[in-house]
Amino acid sequence: MNINSISSKPSLSSAQIPAVIQVTAADESGGVRTVEITGEYPLTLYVDGREIVTLMTLGQMPEALSVGWLRNQRLVSSISDIEEVMVDWEVNSAAVYTRSGLVPLASKRTITSGCGQGTMFGDLLEEVQEVNFVRSHSLTATALAQLLEDIRNRDTVYKSAGAVHACALAFFDGIGCAIQIFVEDVGRHNAVDAIAGWMWINDVEGADCVFYTTGRLTSEMVVKCAQMKIPYLVSRSGLTRMGYEIAVATGLTMFGRAVNRRYLLFTGGKHFVPER
Amino acid sequence: MNINSISSKPSLSSAQIPAVIQVTAADESGGVRTVEITGEYPLTLYVDGREIVTLMTLGQMPEALSVGWLRNQRLVSSISDIEEVMVDWEVNSAAVYTRSGLVPLASKRTITSGCGQGTMFGDLLEEVQEVNFVRSHSLTATALAQLLEDIRNRDTVYKSAGAVHACALAFFDGIGCAIQIFVEDVGRHNAVDAIAGWMWINDVEGADCVFYTTGRLTSEMVVKCAQMKIPYLVSRSGLTRMGYEIAVATGLTMFGRAVNRRYLLFTGGKHFVPER
Repeated sequence: MNINSISSKPSLSSAQIPAVIQVTAADESGGVRTVEITGEYPLTLYVDGREIVTLMTLGQMPEALSVGWLRNQRLVSSISDIEEVMVDWEVNSAAVYTRSGLVPLASKRTITSGCGQGTMFGDLLEEVQEVNFVRSHSLTATALAQLLEDIRNRDTVYKSAGAVHACALAFFDGIGCAIQIFVEDVGRHNAVDAIAGWMWINDVEGADCVFYTTGRLTSEMVVKCAQMKIPYLVSRSGLTRMGYEIAVATGLTMFGRAVNRRYLLFTGGKHFVPER
Repeated sequence: MNINSISSKPSLSSAQIPAVIQVTAADESGGVRTVEITGEYPLTLYVDGREIVTLMTLGQMPEALSVGWLRNQRLVSSISDIEEVMVDWEVNSAAVYTRSGLVPLASKRTITSGCGQGTMFGDLLEEVQEVNFVRSHSLTATALAQLLEDIRNRDTVYKSAGAVHACALAFFDGIGCAIQIFVEDVGRHNAVDAIAGWMWINDVEGADCVFYTTGRLTSEMVVKCAQMKIPYLVSRSGLTRMGYEIAVATGLTMFGRAVNRRYLLFTGGKHFVPER
């Protein structure tokens, strides 16, 4: 995986905000205890001074989230179009400056079912077609199991406070999977978008990558993975009919119910080497 | 709970579509098996002939979902404004006819973190304030445990195919909780919206009701519950900081991590009678 530094890399802030806060709660025994709950913060995105959207986020990668949201909404067509992303939690804002403005909005939008109603432009779903995924090697069951183990061993917000989804991007070198980036967010799609932003910011292509999500594989998740040209998609959860159909149409190799050494391989099996 | 038939009740279709489909998948042992996966269908909402949005849904209560989405987006201010809802799965459309058109859209929208990016108008979050909840009785731990047991015993899409969230509306009569409506959807917010629509269609108020969700209590979930004036909110999952703050501000009685006889009571405890 080549992480090049591109000349036109945007200038980014590195804003920080707590991932969890403590509150008291009474349990069934009547005992009052301190419980950690997940942070959730509004982040209002301004592009070239114009307010675009407010995302509710865990806020751990706000710059990447801002970039990735613009990427996945296809409002910006290249990272080189982004000059600067400045996040300021004092005012819950992300100020994005572009070199050439936003791609004009499609008139039609589809509110998709990212465990609720994510946003995505409708034409995207109509454009689903075979994707030219780059796989230098076929993923092995051993590498998949090791990836799931690495993810399970992480110290996560989920373990302390729950109420988040996690996504990870790993690179498969033919032997093992190395996690490049791991993101948790209150929004399943925020986590995906943050990874999409991180990939752009670091000039990382989807080739030979494995995308892991704790979230369900609904249409939008699968479309985003295909858009990022990531050949392998792995979920701890289940999938939907449209997620399945999009995976088939694009040629994605998709696993559901992947926990420890268990998984269900739904699509793209010719690029996977099961345990012997 | 009075379910009146109101004179201006809209005329509704009763469209049906399969909740699960079967596909084949290979498991870790290499065995190929038939697996049920969750239905997900686009439902394009047309209001008075104008295309508004496409929701991706499990499609089990499309008429109620259409009404509830319009209600929770505050595009329609009363059920009496809705004349007809006709869903046709042949063309994946819901044709809604109003008596007086839609409430003008707020200019600002907030994309909230309904496990992704739900839609809600931003001014709503700014309007959060104490809600005049009607509680004829304080909920008891016994009634809560029985409600959780009733939900656990349901035959659900989740059990067969996963990848859905469930919501239920129950009425508490001072002794026990009776489930009025139970909805599953690929979108957590779709399930909530379908219940909001069902309540409007059946002229059900939130007084003395308990709202159950498998989903996380993010800001949007709590706001929607408060909007429906439902005094008790119960989740199998965790909650976020904003969900917590909104529950405190509105006076909602909110439980998280509610499974079997276990729960965490986070807010509004003065309206709850724990086990003695």
